[in-house]
Amino acid sequence: MKITASGDVVLLQSRDHKSFVFVLQPGARLESHRGILLHDDLVGQPWGQQVESHLGKVFTLLRPSTDDLVRHLKRNSQIVYPKDAGYILMKLGIRPGCHVLEAGTGSGGMALILAQAVMPTGRVYSYDSREDMQALARRNLARVGLDGYVDLKLRDVAQGFDETDVDALFFDLPAPWYYLEQAAAALVNGGFWGCILPTTNQVSELLYALQRSPFTMVEVEELILRPYKPVPARLRPQDRIIGHTGFLVFARKLAQE
Amino acid sequence: MKITASGDVVLLQSRDHKSFVFVLQPGARLESHRGILLHDDLVGQPWGQQVESHLGKVFTLLRPSTDDLVRHLKRNSQIVYPKDAGYILMKLGIRPGCHVLEAGTGSGGMALILAQAVMPTGRVYSYDSREDMQALARRNLARVGLDGYVDLKLRDVAQGFDETDVDALFFDLPAPWYYLEQAAAALVNGGFWGCILPTTNQVSELLYALQRSPFTMVEVEELILRPYKPVPARLRPQDRIIGHTGFLVFARKLAQE
Amino acid sequence: MKITASGDVVLLQSRDHKSFVFVLQPGARLESHRGILLHDDLVGQPWGQQVESHLGKVFTLLRPSTDDLVRHLKRNSQIVYPKDAGYILMKLGIRPGCHVLEAGTGSGGMALILAQAVMPTGRVYSYDSREDMQALARRNLARVGLDGYVDLKLRDVAQGFDETDVDALFFDLPAPWYYLEQAAAALVNGGFWGCILPTTNQVSELLYALQRSPFTMVEVEELILRPYKPVPARLRPQDRIIGHTGFLVFARKLAQE
Amino acid sequence: MKITASGDVVLLQSRDHKSFVFVLQPGARLESHRGILLHDDLVGQPWGQQVESHLGKVFTLLRPSTDDLVRHLKRNSQIVYPKDAGYILMKLGIRPGCHVLEAGTGSGGMALILAQAVMPTGRVYSYDSREDMQALARRNLARVGLDGYVDLKLRDVAQGFDETDVDALFFDLPAPWYYLEQAAAALVNGGFWGCILPTTNQVSELLYALQRSPFTMVEVEELILRPYKPVPARLRPQDRIIGHTGFLVFARKLAQE
Repeated sequence: MKITASGDVVLLQSRDHKSFVFVLQPGARLESHRGILLHDDLVGQPWGQQVESHLGKVFTLLRPSTDDLVRHLKRNSQIVYPKDAGYILMKLGIRPGCHVLEAGTGSGGMALILAQAVMPTGRVYSYDSREDMQALARRNLARVGLDGYVDLKLRDVAQGFDETDVDALFFDLPAPWYYLEQAAAALVNGGFWGCILPTTNQVSELLYALQRSPFTMVEVEELILRPYKPVPARLRPQDRIIGHTGFLVFARKLAQE
Repeated sequence: MKITASGDVVLLQSRDHKSFVFVLQPGARLESHRGILLHDDLVGQPWGQQVESHLGKVFTLLRPSTDDLVRHLKRNSQIVYPKDAGYILMKLGIRPGCHVLEAGTGSGGMALILAQAVMPTGRVYSYDSREDMQALARRNLARVGLDGYVDLKLRDVAQGFDETDVDALFFDLPAPWYYLEQAAAALVNGGFWGCILPTTNQVSELLYALQRSPFTMVEVEELILRPYKPVPARLRPQDRIIGHTGFLVFARKLAQE
Repeated sequence: MKITASGDVVLLQSRDHKSFVFVLQPGARLESHRGILLHDDLVGQPWGQQVESHLGKVFTLLRPSTDDLVRHLKRNSQIVYPKDAGYILMKLGIRPGCHVLEAGTGSGGMALILAQAVMPTGRVYSYDSREDMQALARRNLARVGLDGYVDLKLRDVAQGFDETDVDALFFDLPAPWYYLEQAAAALVNGGFWGCILPTTNQVSELLYALQRSPFTMVEVEELILRPYKPVPARLRPQDRIIGHTGFLVFARKLAQE
Repeated sequence: MKITASGDVVLLQSRDHKSFVFVLQPGARLESHRGILLHDDLVGQPWGQQVESHLGKVFTLLRPSTDDLVRHLKRNSQIVYPKDAGYILMKLGIRPGCHVLEAGTGSGGMALILAQAVMPTGRVYSYDSREDMQALARRNLARVGLDGYVDLKLRDVAQGFDETDVDALFFDLPAPWYYLEQAAAALVNGGFWGCILPTTNQVSELLYALQRSPFTMVEVEELILRPYKPVPARLRPQDRIIGHTGFLVFARKLAQE
């Protein structure tokens, strides 16, 4: 039987849909409106165990999914939602062993997903010009043991990338159209390029720039996640949902000498 | 410069959005309404190269993305679309090294995606009761070099699974509610369970069964993919789209002795 | 120049999207966090005028649209949203002069829309078994001067309807499948039948009942309203939206002797 | 019992969802792949009657809904879909007695819906610069007996409108931002202005122009219609749907001297 150990990243989920993601540490405790739980009481429990706070509130002790990890990141910025991130993996052909470049580290959510998808032999190179963001991303990656697969680089993207022949490149930047030359220089011939943008104006601006670039096979897509109330006798979509995260743009790099 | 070699899986994409995925083989040729291309003329070309058919039609020579691979599978059955598959990876915590069980191999599209996500050290066990489907899935996996990561098992799910302690389990079956006991026996405590179903009736039936099962944290979700016409001066959603693929249901297994 | 008069129904809209719908009455005043406005100061103003509260907050003085009227109803129940109501008018062929029966008056929102669409020569018959709801609906209709076009009837639908040969019938009831016989008795041959239901289970139950009924040409549809942030340089869908109101079901009555 | 008469507009709907809308005329016949029906055999039938073609195919004889009428218009142009038109009625406060101006008659579908909503005492003024479109719209309106409520005017919108103090104005034009001054001159103070546009670029351009105009309370919205397969035991959204018709923009005219 698999049991939890100190150092494990765990998800504690209450029956009323409140959840916590944290690392089990000797002597630490989780405090919330639903009561106190001592980490020492959680260590050695089977995964999937139901445990009680000192107030008698029931929690389930679980390994966090990738979705859980990303949703519980400490963040200073908008994250790439898992619905988008999963699809980006499919469209950029991300697999174990890939070398992937990311521009716009932000809180490190997408870097986390990319690192987990390319490990153990692949590598992620993630650029950001803000030191505070990279420090946060570093902590977020370290907490889940993925910092060893990511090179965080503090640099303005305008100055270009150190890497060449990377398999895929993802931009989470407000004005990606300025950096297509830098992108092309880093990407392998035929490589995958992707981007997320919140507004239609940005998408149009980018599409104009892509027309004058060595990129081809441009696609623009959007994913809408519709959650349902999981009640068997009264199945229905949720009343209030997230209506928009971002537009996804994908392209491929043509061969260059 | 990276170039293509015999045995590579390639994507040829025409300017008018017709695409082909195939393995480069000495002496073979690709014939279509857009003209003929000899594989021998493609071998040794740089990735991302534009090539011409004997009719002068231009194609771009690319590595297929996971999305491309799945869309071009030979299939006898409905496939799990990449928009859904990518999100399933996020929700089931699939990563390199995971052991994942699938029930309902179908044409092997989801097995392909799972294999690619857990390789090189993980493993996929995929069950189906139809021999023809498994033969097709085997060919589809072999073509892209992923058959080494998948154990295809010809068996009715009612008879249970050989594996125990798998990290995640995915059901692509018409009546998953009959097999929750078998699922629980195969899954590790706390493990991830997921499922795709086309109709609301099936979702309700499943939700009833999950209430009487050792599964918890049930979620029902749906993803709608909205493609846009990538024209910078006239950006707009596509006129006709796929309106539905399936409902996704996720749950976690509670600890059992 | 058209100006406001005592007795007019007005919409006051602040710049920060707070709005009020009320009847102009001598001596009355509107009080809110944005300050006080005297009705007497509003009477005689041109429509479309910008006026200030005693706190200097600017409001625009307007005739309410049907959408505004319905959104500002006093309500004790879920209303039929204007996006759904407008489409229902199109599907049920509602036009001036029609006789329309409604079962499930609720707060009177749909009765208001129907009354306005069939006036001056048509008529709405609206049934509800709850006296408090009908009293509320009566006040809501009277406030906007439409009570003269609606017969509110306090009765359980199981007991049938007084009317025959009505052009269209709309059900806003939790279990419409029990009352299809009563519906058929009230509707003209070939007449329009419609219904709104929040859950998929109800839709299925209704579809079964419709198969054993004199109704044909059954359609199930749903409308999703996606509002955008109206910022020209940063156009994008709203972040949080209403994800579900109800499923619409439509059918036509076959000829009966 | 209500029966059909010569001159009636009828909908004939086959069991396999093929439908025809036409005017009953002595001596005429309907021919299709599903067989021949003589109008003379249809006259005098009860509404809602099932009739057979000479090939034994069954059709239901019905009054067309507004939705049916618009879907069966003869058209040379994109129409405003009923899902959008119904909502436009709600947002523009269209009701019997209103005077409504439309710019961009097209095939007359929206004029038909507006005419039906404002009759018998209201009026629609519909402008178009193409003679062929207006001729088509005139025939479409006459066929359903609504031409008496619509003034069709052949004119370029740049030259302005004859009317003043109209209650509402609807633009179905590619570049509405050029004609806001003309719109303001025709609309009553506080009046309703609406517009449909297919691309995001047009919406942005319009939003810029509205900022410099006497219009306020600008809203941008979009409606997505999701049809379901009406099968009680296998309820599910349709596989392929219309993904986009147009963006709706609404605004109100501020008071002007």
